[in-house]
Amino acid sequence: MKRNVVVGQSGGPTAVINSSIAGVYFEAKQQGYQKVYGMIHGIEGFLQGKIVDLDEYLADPMGIELLKRTPSAFLGSCRFKMPAIEGHEDVYQKIIDIMEENEIDTLFYAGGNDSMDTVKMLSDYAAATGRKQTFMGVPKTIDNDLPITDHCPGYSSAAKYIGTSIKEIIRDNESFGAAKPTIVVVEIMGRHAGWLTAAAALAKGDDCSGCDAIYLPERTFDLDEFMAKVKHLAATKHSVVIAVSEGIHTADGKFVCEAGGAVLPVDAFGHKQLGGTASNLCRIIAAETGLKTRAIEFSTLQRAGSHISSLTDVNEAFESGRASARAAAEGKTALMPVLVRESQDPYLCGIDLHDIHDIANVEKPVPDEFITEDGCGITEAYLEYARPLIMGELIPVYVDGLPRHLVMKELFD
Amino acid sequence: MKRNVVVGQSGGPTAVINSSIAGVYFEAKQQGYQKVYGMIHGIEGFLQGKIVDLDEYLADPMGIELLKRTPSAFLGSCRFKMPAIEGHEDVYQKIIDIMEENEIDTLFYAGGNDSMDTVKMLSDYAAATGRKQTFMGVPKTIDNDLPITDHCPGYSSAAKYIGTSIKEIIRDNESFGAAKPTIVVVEIMGRHAGWLTAAAALAKGDDCSGCDAIYLPERTFDLDEFMAKVKHLAATKHSVVIAVSEGIHTADGKFVCEAGGAVLPVDAFGHKQLGGTASNLCRIIAAETGLKTRAIEFSTLQRAGSHISSLTDVNEAFESGRASARAAAEGKTALMPVLVRESQDPYLCGIDLHDIHDIANVEKPVPDEFITEDGCGITEAYLEYARPLIMGELIPVYVDGLPRHLVMKELFD
Repeated sequence: MKRNVVVGQSGGPTAVINSSIAGVYFEAKQQGYQKVYGMIHGIEGFLQGKIVDLDEYLADPMGIELLKRTPSAFLGSCRFKMPAIEGHEDVYQKIIDIMEENEIDTLFYAGGNDSMDTVKMLSDYAAATGRKQTFMGVPKTIDNDLPITDHCPGYSSAAKYIGTSIKEIIRDNESFGAAKPTIVVVEIMGRHAGWLTAAAALAKGDDCSGCDAIYLPERTFDLDEFMAKVKHLAATKHSVVIAVSEGIHTADGKFVCEAGGAVLPVDAFGHKQLGGTASNLCRIIAAETGLKTRAIEFSTLQRAGSHISSLTDVNEAFESGRASARAAAEGKTALMPVLVRESQDPYLCGIDLHDIHDIANVEKPVPDEFITEDGCGITEAYLEYARPLIMGELIPVYVDGLPRHLVMKELFD
Repeated sequence: MKRNVVVGQSGGPTAVINSSIAGVYFEAKQQGYQKVYGMIHGIEGFLQGKIVDLDEYLADPMGIELLKRTPSAFLGSCRFKMPAIEGHEDVYQKIIDIMEENEIDTLFYAGGNDSMDTVKMLSDYAAATGRKQTFMGVPKTIDNDLPITDHCPGYSSAAKYIGTSIKEIIRDNESFGAAKPTIVVVEIMGRHAGWLTAAAALAKGDDCSGCDAIYLPERTFDLDEFMAKVKHLAATKHSVVIAVSEGIHTADGKFVCEAGGAVLPVDAFGHKQLGGTASNLCRIIAAETGLKTRAIEFSTLQRAGSHISSLTDVNEAFESGRASARAAAEGKTALMPVLVRESQDPYLCGIDLHDIHDIANVEKPVPDEFITEDGCGITEAYLEYARPLIMGELIPVYVDGLPRHLVMKELFD
């Protein structure tokens, strides 16, 4: 007889990570599990025994519909790095013990590269010590940098938000036609991979001339070349809008946002908290040219903008959660669902399962064929890849004029 | 027989200023005018004779529907300050001449305080020199600071964008439950009036605890009190989200964004281009407390976010345009339509016409009864005022996954 499962969320949230949780819940119940627990604030909370029975929120189908429309991590997230197994067996054993106490057969963890490493290490420990508990990954990252999978749930909604917002920024900037143009530099998330920044290219269409230049961290940033480009654009256009990744860096390996000696804060995984790239560049442009500039950062809005999430993304996130739960019910472990593009036109994506060991800690950069030869543009091949992902909308449930969210009260205890 | 009219847009654009243009076009045609011209880049372009026959874009009703869904100034905007009449009669006469050449009876100008001053001065000149041409204002400003009118077209959509985005930012920030909270400071437009920043209060509801503090420029900003508030919040809450107006200033009259000696650029009206308030405050918080901070600026997104515009706003903007055209057809001049709230529940707003001389150059601040006694919160009275304004949505026309806009090719000539 099937007992219980637990699901958790980890890392930076997305607009659709909750759809994946809804998918795990829905399918686990279908498969005959008794209880589906949520861990509060990921593994960090789980280690303190913080779990909640999700029936309280999701037994009513309206709960699942609201959860699909709720951004960020409904269960709470964490940035908790699992220690190496050797020398820290107690941490791993404690997780197994809490699972055993609560008759939990499977632990699902939704997240990106770091979170898949947690799944890998937990399943490695269970295998090495002959435990019967299983561990499954659920893919989630706006960064779109997980390997093997065609794309990652969370990316498409962020891309739709970015494409829409860039288009609105261009429209706004174009409205002023003075001789002196305004140079807008938009900073987009993406530490090492430029997938999110590439999405700025989606703004281009019959009704929009698109970004004038797009800089990804996959190419070394050269300030002189950048300034030459800016001056050329300013001399030929009324409105100039440029997208840059927060992760762009010069040949010496320095982030552009570190220019001027800024010391960036560091998180639990040792990653620097980036930001300020656009305003640094605007300062330089204004000083060298006297042009009016405007720096815009999408900040957390790009990962939390569920009011304009992609329906394709919501559905794929939900189905990824279901696939993970189905595999667990079949006794599998140490796997993550991956999206496989079966057809481009019409767009059709299937779901396979892949060994977590090939996925954890591997980052997939934007490939060469998606970047133009001059290094500051995005190719048609990328647009063909990305356009199907942003199709469709899941209209919010509006209450008092604003999108309604589902909120777990235990998050605030 | 009715001849022609011309309509222009001026100042910072909004999500619905194009709906007003659509309203002027629609009603002017109903009233039997021959041609409805658009002036390209406002009075600045008009002085160069740049006009376009709007039939080209709006004769097809689908054009009007797309225009309602297009943010920013479809006709192009400008920040052109009319000189004093005395000594510059040639400028005024040139406008009259261009109107006469093109058989234009009425000039409509959509904008905020500065633009209404343009309408006032043009109508004053026409009256003083016995001209028959008429001049009408069409209200537009996200700042909501025009007097007499209950609220201004453009404000409600910006408020809906701000309320929605603040809610998503809070959701995102709440997902991390570490002992050390992240302090998010969100900077919102509004040089002298805090109407837009007050809209951050709309995020609060059954599913959202709302902002922890809201600072408007109507109150003097005290850095010590602010820091005491931040420290108290950080000691008692996991997530802290604070909204500040770009225009907040200390007792000595200095903008908070000028702290540290930053020199702000100045526009044609002599207004300083503000920005950097949130990041300045975050720097101070981080230095004094070591807490993790995040500065977010909505920048031009808050005035261009037509993908989540308020249907109430779109309709009121359209009807304001119509009212202006109707009055012109009746031979009136030097008026602006004002919104009159006739009933609160159900919300019902009528449109009157008011003398432009009472409106030009007058700024309406947020009244005392909308600000809490401690000076860093918003009252229920404001929420009652604002909630009806953000009701309803005008769903975008999505093409290739992004909202479709109507674009005037002459803007790029």
